[in-house]
Amino acid sequence: MNILIAQQNYHIGNFEANTAKILDAIAEGKAKGADLVVFSELAVCGYPPRDFLEFSDFIDQASNAIDRIREAADTIGVIVGYPSRNTDPRGKDLFNSACLLFEKEVKAVVHKTLLPNYDVFDEYRYFEPAFSWQVMEFKGLKLAVTICEDIWNLDENPLYRNNPMDELIQQQPDIMINLSASPFDYEHAADRHEIVRQNVLRYNLPMVYCNAVGSQTEIVFDGGSLVMDRHGNTVSELPYFTEGLRIVSWNTNNTFTAVDAHIPNTSIPTHAPDNTWPPCAPSAIANIHQALLLGIRDYFSKMGFTRAIVASSGGIDSAVVLALACEALGPENVHALLMPSQFSTSHSVDDAVQLSKNLDNRYDIIAIKDVFDTYESALKPVFKDLPFNVAEENLQSRIRGAFVMALANKFGYILLNTSNKSELATGYGTLYGDMAGGLGVLGDLYKMQVYALAEYINRHGEIIPENILTKAPSAELRPGQKDSDSLPDYAILDKVLYHYIEERKGPDEIVAMGFERALVTRILRLVNINEYKRNQFCPIIRVSSKAFGVGRRMPIVGKYLA
Amino acid sequence: MNILIAQQNYHIGNFEANTAKILDAIAEGKAKGADLVVFSELAVCGYPPRDFLEFSDFIDQASNAIDRIREAADTIGVIVGYPSRNTDPRGKDLFNSACLLFEKEVKAVVHKTLLPNYDVFDEYRYFEPAFSWQVMEFKGLKLAVTICEDIWNLDENPLYRNNPMDELIQQQPDIMINLSASPFDYEHAADRHEIVRQNVLRYNLPMVYCNAVGSQTEIVFDGGSLVMDRHGNTVSELPYFTEGLRIVSWNTNNTFTAVDAHIPNTSIPTHAPDNTWPPCAPSAIANIHQALLLGIRDYFSKMGFTRAIVASSGGIDSAVVLALACEALGPENVHALLMPSQFSTSHSVDDAVQLSKNLDNRYDIIAIKDVFDTYESALKPVFKDLPFNVAEENLQSRIRGAFVMALANKFGYILLNTSNKSELATGYGTLYGDMAGGLGVLGDLYKMQVYALAEYINRHGEIIPENILTKAPSAELRPGQKDSDSLPDYAILDKVLYHYIEERKGPDEIVAMGFERALVTRILRLVNINEYKRNQFCPIIRVSSKAFGVGRRMPIVGKYLA
Repeated sequence: MNILIAQQNYHIGNFEANTAKILDAIAEGKAKGADLVVFSELAVCGYPPRDFLEFSDFIDQASNAIDRIREAADTIGVIVGYPSRNTDPRGKDLFNSACLLFEKEVKAVVHKTLLPNYDVFDEYRYFEPAFSWQVMEFKGLKLAVTICEDIWNLDENPLYRNNPMDELIQQQPDIMINLSASPFDYEHAADRHEIVRQNVLRYNLPMVYCNAVGSQTEIVFDGGSLVMDRHGNTVSELPYFTEGLRIVSWNTNNTFTAVDAHIPNTSIPTHAPDNTWPPCAPSAIANIHQALLLGIRDYFSKMGFTRAIVASSGGIDSAVVLALACEALGPENVHALLMPSQFSTSHSVDDAVQLSKNLDNRYDIIAIKDVFDTYESALKPVFKDLPFNVAEENLQSRIRGAFVMALANKFGYILLNTSNKSELATGYGTLYGDMAGGLGVLGDLYKMQVYALAEYINRHGEIIPENILTKAPSAELRPGQKDSDSLPDYAILDKVLYHYIEERKGPDEIVAMGFERALVTRILRLVNINEYKRNQFCPIIRVSSKAFGVGRRMPIVGKYLA
Repeated sequence: MNILIAQQNYHIGNFEANTAKILDAIAEGKAKGADLVVFSELAVCGYPPRDFLEFSDFIDQASNAIDRIREAADTIGVIVGYPSRNTDPRGKDLFNSACLLFEKEVKAVVHKTLLPNYDVFDEYRYFEPAFSWQVMEFKGLKLAVTICEDIWNLDENPLYRNNPMDELIQQQPDIMINLSASPFDYEHAADRHEIVRQNVLRYNLPMVYCNAVGSQTEIVFDGGSLVMDRHGNTVSELPYFTEGLRIVSWNTNNTFTAVDAHIPNTSIPTHAPDNTWPPCAPSAIANIHQALLLGIRDYFSKMGFTRAIVASSGGIDSAVVLALACEALGPENVHALLMPSQFSTSHSVDDAVQLSKNLDNRYDIIAIKDVFDTYESALKPVFKDLPFNVAEENLQSRIRGAFVMALANKFGYILLNTSNKSELATGYGTLYGDMAGGLGVLGDLYKMQVYALAEYINRHGEIIPENILTKAPSAELRPGQKDSDSLPDYAILDKVLYHYIEERKGPDEIVAMGFERALVTRILRLVNINEYKRNQFCPIIRVSSKAFGVGRRMPIVGKYLA
């Protein structure tokens, strides 16, 4: 029996486009002699559909899509994920389901048991967990079909009290099939192979693992679908960060063979984590680079935009964003705006100009001083003789925000934001100024990771001018300003932030790691008193295990460590 | 036996302040001869603590607070809510718990069974549900203690598959006690009495119901704690939207008596909903008024601020916000900034000036034309001769945003945002312009509700000038502009929005209610394509059953009805 694994990039709620894509894969499967095509979790509506699931009309449209796909599943079997209604009056109204379609009929339906409800996941908000389990029978084989999280509960401190495979194994299945929508993060990349391996060894069964690919606002699904035999050997592996269709054959001796030629995966999420501080590990940076490119591309294509604008300051963050934007969208679709203030050094403009020359993208220069002076005159009757302070610093940042948004509105650009995670964590940024934008490209990278990414971007030669990599970071909003006037050294700051944000360590634990208590107290307080700023920030492409945004939910009026 | 019900306003994560407040109530209970003091859900840390719960240090601090309270519970019993650790390796690490403290010991602990995970609630993100049930014994009585949602599962289409009271009733308890943190919304206000009544009748037991009060960023807890006898009669009811301590006596004939004199509740959330379109019902508006005042006051006090600034345009929205701010914070703490454009009519300024004279708050006038002209000159080399369009309209709005934020930064104000729900729904607003601010005061009120609230504010005489109530709404960003150029009539728009947002009706259902299909399609599309704008909006004080913000989670790149 031949099984086609369809690793596809869906668009949330775009039933027309998703169904067409699914039908294409079924047609391809028929052409290539597949008996069965396997799709990913909630394929018909895209993952995560969030509160669209609360609209009955949305569920009807998903159901209509399944009807169309069922008509195509005549001589070929199809296993596809979709939201289905719970007909029991008790419990939530929906299940997160997978159905087997064959001979134009729904032959079987299974529901997800373990509903992730941490970080970016909210599944228990919508779905009732399965409470009965049944293998699917297809062409004489028993298929143990599970959905994503269902296979992840093997920890010695398990998050859930049961395991659906422990139920299904009693029905003596031949193959495990898992439909996933499992997102990328640089720390988690190696775990997927490991969890599939643990399952095949524990249950002594091979597994077909089909993952989604593509970015959905902030969450990047990285693909990497795979087939593993019962001994833990990888039979076939699909590419990372891109779509793919791949056929495997189930032989009469109960083993899988890869049918297609093996296509090497240029990205490497299956490497073990480096032992250097994880955020700057070389293999992590290469994967982050891929994830950010996919994140930018999919945000634009799914929002229906093609062109970007970047406020190019001559600093490292905007340089990296501009380089990524040019690579993701093409330099002809990227406009850089340089907006020197009276406090900008001449090399800032020179460096930013050189960068755009290297990248071959359009740039313009608009100085902000005239507008700033006009504001100052208008504010004089109210401000009187109060000294220059953060109000004037923020005003300059907001003038830049208004200029770059004016171009975005006039020419139909999306503004790419350049704030990094260290700045966002500490509140070192101006709301409606440098915090403006439609998509946060670097918002999940600490400053030290931004440097590492810049060096990676320059791996084949200078794209980002050397001077940008070496000069001291500055917002250039007052004479001689440096980031280090306001913030601890990034090499230390980033580690404290990582222990607090990613690892959720308390102040005492972080101090015990060898950091000064006063510094730790100050940094944690900065993080906690700036929730109100991050709350108004744009979506951030998520690459870590704990990004700011939908996966980190803090009380704004909270008074913890603040 | 005397029971003191402590309806208090906690500050999330502020263990010091919360513990002090709890100890005060215990001291008061001792002084007044209470045997038992009952507090609300998660009282020691405040509700909702959100992802603070993921920090082990936070749980330790909650545990330390319980230790301090336990020492005070010597001759008096205390039932108080707190997060506790799950010692079973399986399942999530925490429970949402209540303990009985007495004789300086923890006499009993119960856990919440039904974990709300809809709208603003995320409890399954953190907590394992209870899976065993035990009454608490205290001074010869059996107390069936449940937590908030535990008593709400009596629907004929129940959200959960079990009911903790069905278990507890088998142990023949004498009294039900429920610890709640149940938020206000104008449609839900009457439900609380009804659900307590259903419980006392179903289980033939009296209930002591202790609710939290106070606003936590966007969620307003309205208090209204109560004691109901087994026949469904209210024995005692605590005030709404304010703190209160109240004692009831459990008599030897197994009935409750109110001990304190009855204090009339000036707000009226227990009224049945009016039959007019709910959002504009007079009883709803009076409650909304109370909720918004509490929301403003608590945001400022919990953030550590005292003074507000409002961009006062002479329109209805800013007038209502300014009046509410003056009432909540005192007119001496509210600064109005009038920022006429070249397209503003003279009456806009006159009306805004008259409003501030009526309210007796400071106002300043800064015209935006000079700054706008300077921007235009600076943009000319890039914009060339492209016609005036939305780019210039937004630019004017952003100039206002920068002015008002400059004053906020210079003088330490919080900017109160004036956008209403109709505008936010349709994207009729400018990011970083009129969408700027720290707190959205009217973001959960449709435009027609804002008018109703304005009339309510004027109920004892003119505060908001008549002309503001009667003129056609306009953003005044181009000559002769009116909201009605871009949006359907608010009386129709608001109803369609309500059916879609609050009721989650699909397009076909809304059309079937008698609205034009083209109009419905257009409005629903506007709602769905503007998620990216609302995603960057400040917290909105929630007064409806479905507010924009944490309780409504939509994919930004989604393509449903868009």
